[in-house]
Amino acid sequence: MGEVKHILLAKFKEGISEQQIDDLIKGYANLVNHCETMKSFKWGKDVSVENLHQGYTHVFESTFETTEGIAAYISHPAHVEFATVFLDQLEKVLVVDYKPTSVEP
Amino acid sequence: MGEVKHILLAKFKEGISEQQIDDLIKGYANLVNHCETMKSFKWGKDVSVENLHQGYTHVFESTFETTEGIAAYISHPAHVEFATVFLDQLEKVLVVDYKPTSVEP
Repeated sequence: MGEVKHILLAKFKEGISEQQIDDLIKGYANLVNHCETMKSFKWGKDVSVENLHQGYTHVFESTFETTEGIAAYISHPAHVEFATVFLDQLEKVLVVDYKPTSVEP
Repeated sequence: MGEVKHILLAKFKEGISEQQIDDLIKGYANLVNHCETMKSFKWGKDVSVENLHQGYTHVFESTFETTEGIAAYISHPAHVEFATVFLDQLEKVLVVDYKPTSVEP
């Protein structure tokens, strides 16, 4: 079965509290309950030490079965509503989608 | 069991051929055979349509059990040797590490 990862890197604006960030993360996670093509959601704070994170502090990882599923998610009203609020709290954002592929040695 | 994701986003320099990119990806994948803390490796081309990818075209995802395992990987001679060659072929690079965490609704 295929799987497509949707990775969003975020840096929140100055002055956003940890509580506000927690609430936004819960709102992001809650999209799984509204957008049926979104199969799972995980997140984490950047803990890298190579200093190549370009200022991004949070990683949001959601999983879809197809790229069409991601398109449906992006245009879903629940996502549009959340994204409007979420993006307004970000100083920087980066999004990539990819199909994780193994390499035969 | 914990798991820490090491995500590298890359944009290759102009003029690098697909064959060279394939060889670099195989070299990256081959680190699994040398760095015992590196548990798995996957990659994919960016297929996002939101135009928030900031020019990055390739995603490399490797998995470790601990952040200490990532530190051991970074300083491993096989990684140092590969990274010297790999980074020289990149126009842009971004690295984040995170522990994928679920959210209780």
